[in-house]
Amino acid sequence: MGGDAAPGSVVGGVAAVQRRLRGVHFLLYGDEGRIAPLLAAYPNLREVAEIRHTPEAVANEDKPSQALRRGKQSSMRLAIDAVAGGEAAAAVSAGNTGALMAMAKVVLKTQPGIDRPAMITYFPTIRGESAMLDLGANLQCDSRNLVEYAILGAGFARSVLGIERPSVGLLNVGIEEAKGNETVRAAGQILRDSDFGFEFHGFVEGNDIGAGTVDVFVTDGFTGNAVLKTTEGTALLISTYLRASFRRSWVSRLGYLLARPALDALRDKLDVRQYNGAMFLGLNGIVVKSHGGTDAEGFGSAISVAVDMVRGDFNDRIHVDLDRFHPPAAEQREAERRSAGQGAAVAS
Amino acid sequence: MGGDAAPGSVVGGVAAVQRRLRGVHFLLYGDEGRIAPLLAAYPNLREVAEIRHTPEAVANEDKPSQALRRGKQSSMRLAIDAVAGGEAAAAVSAGNTGALMAMAKVVLKTQPGIDRPAMITYFPTIRGESAMLDLGANLQCDSRNLVEYAILGAGFARSVLGIERPSVGLLNVGIEEAKGNETVRAAGQILRDSDFGFEFHGFVEGNDIGAGTVDVFVTDGFTGNAVLKTTEGTALLISTYLRASFRRSWVSRLGYLLARPALDALRDKLDVRQYNGAMFLGLNGIVVKSHGGTDAEGFGSAISVAVDMVRGDFNDRIHVDLDRFHPPAAEQREAERRSAGQGAAVAS
Repeated sequence: MGGDAAPGSVVGGVAAVQRRLRGVHFLLYGDEGRIAPLLAAYPNLREVAEIRHTPEAVANEDKPSQALRRGKQSSMRLAIDAVAGGEAAAAVSAGNTGALMAMAKVVLKTQPGIDRPAMITYFPTIRGESAMLDLGANLQCDSRNLVEYAILGAGFARSVLGIERPSVGLLNVGIEEAKGNETVRAAGQILRDSDFGFEFHGFVEGNDIGAGTVDVFVTDGFTGNAVLKTTEGTALLISTYLRASFRRSWVSRLGYLLARPALDALRDKLDVRQYNGAMFLGLNGIVVKSHGGTDAEGFGSAISVAVDMVRGDFNDRIHVDLDRFHPPAAEQREAERRSAGQGAAVAS
Repeated sequence: MGGDAAPGSVVGGVAAVQRRLRGVHFLLYGDEGRIAPLLAAYPNLREVAEIRHTPEAVANEDKPSQALRRGKQSSMRLAIDAVAGGEAAAAVSAGNTGALMAMAKVVLKTQPGIDRPAMITYFPTIRGESAMLDLGANLQCDSRNLVEYAILGAGFARSVLGIERPSVGLLNVGIEEAKGNETVRAAGQILRDSDFGFEFHGFVEGNDIGAGTVDVFVTDGFTGNAVLKTTEGTALLISTYLRASFRRSWVSRLGYLLARPALDALRDKLDVRQYNGAMFLGLNGIVVKSHGGTDAEGFGSAISVAVDMVRGDFNDRIHVDLDRFHPPAAEQREAERRSAGQGAAVAS
């Protein structure tokens, strides 16, 4: 029920990716009266999607604390409960971000060895694709948080970007070891001195993001959020200027017409819908937040990432690196181990 | 002597702006044997530029502490000394940033009412031009620092961008008052409750930077540095993709040829050389850091900004707002007041 175009964008998103995601079963949480007619339009979903009716939904303006208290029967909460109970392997929602993070933390809890969960996404770069975390789940990080995010981010790059030994960079104000504040320098020291299952590249700067200097950019949630939104603003600025430039004369307009197929291809390459979704990392279960303003294609991308994380054994594989960082976490994990579910819960 | 193409870029920069900056006198600090032949090529500088010979120069790899200790006769230090002594109204350098900031702080000292100095720059936006600070002088800001940066940034927008009542926004992870960490929320509260000589717009996000939602973006030095470099990386990413798109087919190549004058105009509009210079704010004197890799045109822009700050009475005008924030600073200032110089010292 979450997102500007829900539940249509959600059901449409499931339909769009279903053929590519053979073997995945979808649980659609929400108002059956609204979902059933939409579902009926997609015969390919008859066998693989089922509606879990609930009349309640978290509203966009609900505070996380409100949603936690009053939303126990909401579509969002029931989808996360399905992950906690092992019925679903992942939950995907385009609803209220704060409420989704709060519910996911309370219901799924933080993985052993992880202090605070993080949000990650990935995006196009000159070199290919890179990921960045945290995007706002943890605004004030200590050095331990940053090291854990490096481990989580590398695991994500393995599962979703398919890079077996990812390179990881710590965002800083300069690349020299002496640069930056104490937190970043201490995290850099730990990462240089340890041998996790990734290549620690060292410090990177803001311009390295577009260049794709590393596969995973690690930073605190305040900076990550600002930086990611800055890339969107800069892209909009340049495309606005570009359109104005093409309108300058009839010759440049003609040039635009001739170059248009190439420019459309560029637009498709940078299309944010392909990169839709902020993935919650560090919890005992996979939760993906789709952009609220996305359409069916964008929601489908968010589902695909969730399935990539499940099939890439994201949560199991990072344990190896986490245990190297915090040896005692291994035993705690063994005690808390729960069996992974096989379905995908969708909070429509 | 600082910068990749110095002293040629510096002397060339002075020559490029001299005609626009009537009445400005230039003191060129550095190696006379290298500067004099360059200067001889510009007859227009004969009356307005003079060389202050020193064989010493701060190297790019010098640590700030080294430069402070050993660089007392360096061109950089002597240029700043000229500002402190009232002989020059501003110093401009393309040399070592850390050394320049350290020397400027030690020699000029922080203005009464300012806890820590900041670095600011300005850039093109969809709406026109905006400024942002801090860019890395102060990596860990408290709420007082952010409020002082709002005052300094507004003063800069008045002096350099010519906006009498600038709008100021505080960079955050969301626009609602409850968003962000304690530091940002506390600074937001002070700015909402006070009446300084600018319009406090509230919280802004990373995408507001390209949009130019406010005239002045205020943030801590860590985030500001990351965000500014991110805009450069994103612009490079898009221009790289754009060039590849135009090469896709002979039709798109023809389109490129026709649109080329418009695209060149776009490139000129976004040309970083126009926006060259990070200005140090909060000191008892004006110091501008030019990009080390710039050419004569870029260095000329940095000189122009320094002159705009002097002619716009930057340091005098912000006192009014600073005194409103810290009333006791007014008396301290009166005691420390020094007469402003009339020349411009250039650490060539």
